[in-house]
Amino acid sequence: MARWLVILAGGRGERFWPLSRMMHPKQFLSLVGSESMLRTTRERLKPLIDDAHTWVVTGRDYVGKVRENLPLMPTSQILGEPVGRNTAPSIAWAAFEIFALDPEAVITVLPSDHMIRRTDEFRRLVRMAIEQAETHGGFYTFGIVPSHPETGYGYIEQDGEGVSPAIQRVARFVEKPPLEQAEAMVASGGYYWNSGMFVFPAQEFLQAVKVHLPEVYQGLELIQQDPSRLDAVFPRFPQVSVDHGIFEKAHPMYVLPADIGWDDVGTFAALARLLPRNDEKNAARGHAVFVDSENVTAISEGPVVSFIGVKDLVVVATRDAVLILPPERAQDVRQVVQALKEGRHEHLL
Amino acid sequence: MARWLVILAGGRGERFWPLSRMMHPKQFLSLVGSESMLRTTRERLKPLIDDAHTWVVTGRDYVGKVRENLPLMPTSQILGEPVGRNTAPSIAWAAFEIFALDPEAVITVLPSDHMIRRTDEFRRLVRMAIEQAETHGGFYTFGIVPSHPETGYGYIEQDGEGVSPAIQRVARFVEKPPLEQAEAMVASGGYYWNSGMFVFPAQEFLQAVKVHLPEVYQGLELIQQDPSRLDAVFPRFPQVSVDHGIFEKAHPMYVLPADIGWDDVGTFAALARLLPRNDEKNAARGHAVFVDSENVTAISEGPVVSFIGVKDLVVVATRDAVLILPPERAQDVRQVVQALKEGRHEHLL
Repeated sequence: MARWLVILAGGRGERFWPLSRMMHPKQFLSLVGSESMLRTTRERLKPLIDDAHTWVVTGRDYVGKVRENLPLMPTSQILGEPVGRNTAPSIAWAAFEIFALDPEAVITVLPSDHMIRRTDEFRRLVRMAIEQAETHGGFYTFGIVPSHPETGYGYIEQDGEGVSPAIQRVARFVEKPPLEQAEAMVASGGYYWNSGMFVFPAQEFLQAVKVHLPEVYQGLELIQQDPSRLDAVFPRFPQVSVDHGIFEKAHPMYVLPADIGWDDVGTFAALARLLPRNDEKNAARGHAVFVDSENVTAISEGPVVSFIGVKDLVVVATRDAVLILPPERAQDVRQVVQALKEGRHEHLL
Repeated sequence: MARWLVILAGGRGERFWPLSRMMHPKQFLSLVGSESMLRTTRERLKPLIDDAHTWVVTGRDYVGKVRENLPLMPTSQILGEPVGRNTAPSIAWAAFEIFALDPEAVITVLPSDHMIRRTDEFRRLVRMAIEQAETHGGFYTFGIVPSHPETGYGYIEQDGEGVSPAIQRVARFVEKPPLEQAEAMVASGGYYWNSGMFVFPAQEFLQAVKVHLPEVYQGLELIQQDPSRLDAVFPRFPQVSVDHGIFEKAHPMYVLPADIGWDDVGTFAALARLLPRNDEKNAARGHAVFVDSENVTAISEGPVVSFIGVKDLVVVATRDAVLILPPERAQDVRQVVQALKEGRHEHLL
């Protein structure tokens, strides 16, 4: 019985255009700190799980990028999907591969593009979940203690019964809520943000896949028997998240409340919140000049960005693209990406 | 007796950073239309004055640029100043050179960085001024009929007497006025914007230089006797504009009211006003994407500039510098240039 790590690195990250590009999505960016988010994610659990037990699922076009980012990992453990089919097929594929090597495997699944400030506490919780899964089985997730009524995340409700205060039973998953519902959930306590991080025994998980997503299970059997079938089989999988396809239905499902300084750094507004600010509340990554400006964020990959008399704005600059928006519009970057697609300017994406 | 043209092309144009750079100031930019402002200025009077009778005064570092822009001009007629000493020494130097070739010369002086939409009307007025100067002597300028109480320009007051309604006597020059005074002048009529364009016989002008700026006159005599003295003599000239140093004192001084679609394109705000706008009042030079944005101007030398939910902003983008400001701060671009100088980022200037 060994501990295995699966990192999901297939995101396309259009919300970070023009920093992210089709061939250089968010998980490969150094949004926070000096290393890529993928590498930081992997390093975070290095004391718990070694490279030989680490797998990455990504898009086929990104396999080379993953190798660059994680040069010490066995390259056979980087799974390149021919097309993206959301997280359930990704995790199921990795679980199949791992289970074939180690039927007793306990797997930890991490997205590759989140920030976690309190690494020690995070490792403590992961270790606790792994040990619990090893001894008692079951499915575990980490519930972020919500700091505000965020409408951009899914929530997890605990049901009050559990192994201990640290390991609560999950009552239900709640999809991204409207603001009123988010406020009520945060006020009530007992709700956590769904971090998309999971721990489970491979065997139990695959059993759940067999029951709840049988076409995925059968397809993965085919692929395992004959890997050349990947391109024929994988694209036929349904687009389904592991939350919706498996964990909403799997039992027993537990949540570990996690106060770990988590941030999904989901938009430029989130990134802006993480940057240190000067007395006028201006922040810069890269070279910026602020004249009579306030609450302005400059994120530059090269060009010097200068402001005169500007307020409440985020500016992202690269050598071939500049994006300007107030932080509250950070969710809408895809509208620009869409306009560039329609205008046949894919070379900029 | 011949007609000569002197184009002043020595400006440094920091107000157009980052489009303009130390080595590429405004007169060499294609701010309006597809050709440089210098070349457009020269082409405008081509039907009146040929290349053999055209001179350009510029900074020594820009002589090569002027040759690139005006390849058909005799290169000996590009005067490169070792340092800038404002317009009086520039024009006086050119007048000295021209007078030596043609003591009967009538000279037309034009700044190289203004826009004139009504070229035919402009040429008609220049021809009128030249003919008047040829037959009666005197100093002539073109007074722009003011469209609003601009505080960024000097004004010229007519005194009601003149050769004809089209050629008025100048009562006085008014320096850049405060707003109240500008409003009163525009309301009263009889005041014009000082366009910095002049027509005069070389001989009369040099006589005025001898009287009003004797140290310039004597210095230019020295330079003409021995051109190797240029570097020793020219830097000692006073910094003085031709308006202040000569024309405020020269007689008889005339103004030709000129309704010629003139714009000095002095700032990014002025440039923004000249660009065509879409239904949301957005304008672009270069590639821009507007999402839910209004009254926004993008001026790009390359990068695509995208806006989401932005209002009343001007953005200027090059590959190595981006500038963001509301139009009413366009006068303050120098503050950024100054900050970059102080931060030792001269390579960006």
